[in-house]
Amino acid sequence: MPRMVEHTARAQQVIWRCQTLARFTEDPPRIRRTFLSPPMRACHQEIEGWMRPLGMTVHIDAVGNLRGIYPATNGATSPKLLIGSHLDTVPGAGAYDGVLGVVVAVALIESLERRRLPFAIEVVGFSEEEGVRFGVPFIGSRALVGTVNEELLNRRDSQGLSVRDAIRAYDLNPNDIPAVALKEEAFGYLEFHIEQGPELEHLGLALAAVEAIAGQTRMELIFLGHANHAGTTPMAVRRDALVAAAEWAVAVERRALETPGLVATVGVLEAKPGAGNVIAGACRATLDVRHPSDQVRAKSVEALLGAAKETADRRGIQLTPSTELLQAATAMDSSLLSYVQAALSQAGLTPHRMVSGAGHDAMILAQKVPSAMIFLRSPGGISHNPQESVLLEDVAKALEVGLHLLHQLASSPEFHKRINRA
Amino acid sequence: MPRMVEHTARAQQVIWRCQTLARFTEDPPRIRRTFLSPPMRACHQEIEGWMRPLGMTVHIDAVGNLRGIYPATNGATSPKLLIGSHLDTVPGAGAYDGVLGVVVAVALIESLERRRLPFAIEVVGFSEEEGVRFGVPFIGSRALVGTVNEELLNRRDSQGLSVRDAIRAYDLNPNDIPAVALKEEAFGYLEFHIEQGPELEHLGLALAAVEAIAGQTRMELIFLGHANHAGTTPMAVRRDALVAAAEWAVAVERRALETPGLVATVGVLEAKPGAGNVIAGACRATLDVRHPSDQVRAKSVEALLGAAKETADRRGIQLTPSTELLQAATAMDSSLLSYVQAALSQAGLTPHRMVSGAGHDAMILAQKVPSAMIFLRSPGGISHNPQESVLLEDVAKALEVGLHLLHQLASSPEFHKRINRA
Repeated sequence: MPRMVEHTARAQQVIWRCQTLARFTEDPPRIRRTFLSPPMRACHQEIEGWMRPLGMTVHIDAVGNLRGIYPATNGATSPKLLIGSHLDTVPGAGAYDGVLGVVVAVALIESLERRRLPFAIEVVGFSEEEGVRFGVPFIGSRALVGTVNEELLNRRDSQGLSVRDAIRAYDLNPNDIPAVALKEEAFGYLEFHIEQGPELEHLGLALAAVEAIAGQTRMELIFLGHANHAGTTPMAVRRDALVAAAEWAVAVERRALETPGLVATVGVLEAKPGAGNVIAGACRATLDVRHPSDQVRAKSVEALLGAAKETADRRGIQLTPSTELLQAATAMDSSLLSYVQAALSQAGLTPHRMVSGAGHDAMILAQKVPSAMIFLRSPGGISHNPQESVLLEDVAKALEVGLHLLHQLASSPEFHKRINRA
Repeated sequence: MPRMVEHTARAQQVIWRCQTLARFTEDPPRIRRTFLSPPMRACHQEIEGWMRPLGMTVHIDAVGNLRGIYPATNGATSPKLLIGSHLDTVPGAGAYDGVLGVVVAVALIESLERRRLPFAIEVVGFSEEEGVRFGVPFIGSRALVGTVNEELLNRRDSQGLSVRDAIRAYDLNPNDIPAVALKEEAFGYLEFHIEQGPELEHLGLALAAVEAIAGQTRMELIFLGHANHAGTTPMAVRRDALVAAAEWAVAVERRALETPGLVATVGVLEAKPGAGNVIAGACRATLDVRHPSDQVRAKSVEALLGAAKETADRRGIQLTPSTELLQAATAMDSSLLSYVQAALSQAGLTPHRMVSGAGHDAMILAQKVPSAMIFLRSPGGISHNPQESVLLEDVAKALEVGLHLLHQLASSPEFHKRINRA
């Protein structure tokens, strides 16, 4: 079978498998699969069923990451190249964000058709990247770089369960988390991911090499006013926490529109008590701010907090902001990036480089392992939405590029240097 | 024991009993007791335990109202005067809204010290007035005036249970609801209630006779935009349903501030999917509008919908408004009102009359039975809030006024006319 036909057939299976995993959800028919929620177990079992026939050994690590090892020529499991992405989703997700990167990694192992390389490949399905259940993202990848701390383990979800509780409830032992941290055995991390934005479609390109990931700030702001009766409390004496937060959300949008390259999002305004006939006494608001420049981002966050303070003060509202995530912009490994660009060229594609507006596990892995990412075009730029999709031919191209990259790494002196260093 | 000391002792017990009922909640330590929720059963049992020793017969009717009858001199249960209020609460409620009216009614029967009157008294604890669980209020009182219909019975709560399901789950039979409707046996309805606003405190008065209840409109507006990734979707191409709804909520407040006597409240802005890193694809907003003039209210609602439409259109957002409640302003019965004012004077109080900004069961009962209300001062004007309170001396005065009223009704020729009509 010609290689391209083969890639297309495998791409078809990749898409079909992503749609299969979409059935494992907490909220059918919508896709929602948060950290170690019950459907994650079925998701793990399904993927394990694909991995074992390929000669991979599989386990779930102490933080709930799915880990599948494909040994090297000599049977060794080190040095190894990590390929992966995350298996958790936002609420109302599409079928490809994160999941595609894990499924493509398995397909790449299949494409090797039992041939071994001079290094092992480990496919990683991270347990948590979106930050939905506990309000902070990257629980899975943080374990690999050794930055899971007590503060993170003690965070609680809306049901009052801690990260530690959730890990135990999944029959895992949180005391084993330190052992999950990578030592010197991994020489690279590669992540395939949908772009989740409109750039590649706009340029008419299938794939791109990611050169950097924009920094992000995630915050939570509590507006505290005074709950009262909606029918009897004159407008002039109200301290309505929801209107205060709403006024600020509009100001956030205005500021982002005025600042080139800035995106700022208020995705939640949760009023308490949250009844139609009660003036909100409190309101929780989320804030997500991203920009390729850390300096512009910091300045913008400061201005947005100033706007919240001004609104709150004028309305007799108490404001409590807290920072959930401060992530600096992260450059991908320049050497691995050049391999990715070479593989793109080898597949007959423009070796386009771009900045990722979204955060990814690669920005965490990069703290410890040379990391690179390959973006696939997102039709309509749509993501975090049931209409999220990928094109069959783009997935086939991704498989082709991935194979070129593996073969280049296997034969390159530069790569051998890396093995020796690892 | 002098009467005033006795009233004060009974008032102390009334406050204590309200605080006791506050312990029956779905969300401890916050008070939340919605229609036929599990704590409602314990609440019913507690009140029944107070009623039975007074010689009252008690049952729960088919829509979950607690009904306690104190028979007339001749042992008859008709004609009867209804005295009551509601036992459900908003989330994060205080201990007195609704509950106080039921507990005061029981205390009035106790104040009779087993004396019978020429008419029966029925104490009613309505099962639903706030509209929290099913989005529409007055399920309890609507059953007494015979306006519970299929549309209401089929409404669903956030768990997908219908009103009919909830009634069955409480071991009641929804088919018996038509028999709950009053025929000719009731000649009056009296409701004690906290004011829930600042007027009486401002005037330095303990009690007032309610002459009318302001009309209200309750609506739900769905803003439908497009969910997308918060990090990769440029500001200019977003269709953010939450910011659209937030902009409108600010406009609602502005309009109400500009319109004398108008109160308009957005108490809920519920974003979907509701995650910090996802642009909201949809947002549900509630609207509560009240004014003593039905005409001003209708005109204001029209303008607020126009503003929502303008915001939605400009932002490429689809808007779906629906009306949950349209309640005309309701006058109380002028004859019963004059009895209440006479009783206020007899107790040495100013016979103050006022309009209620809040809706009450009395506005529903008035469709079928001459109805009147007595307001008790709300310290700080605070209600729908854990800090809601009443003053001991105001409750004592309410008991005194209630007793005067019962004795006046028992001896008045006008009252006998009413009995004959009933």
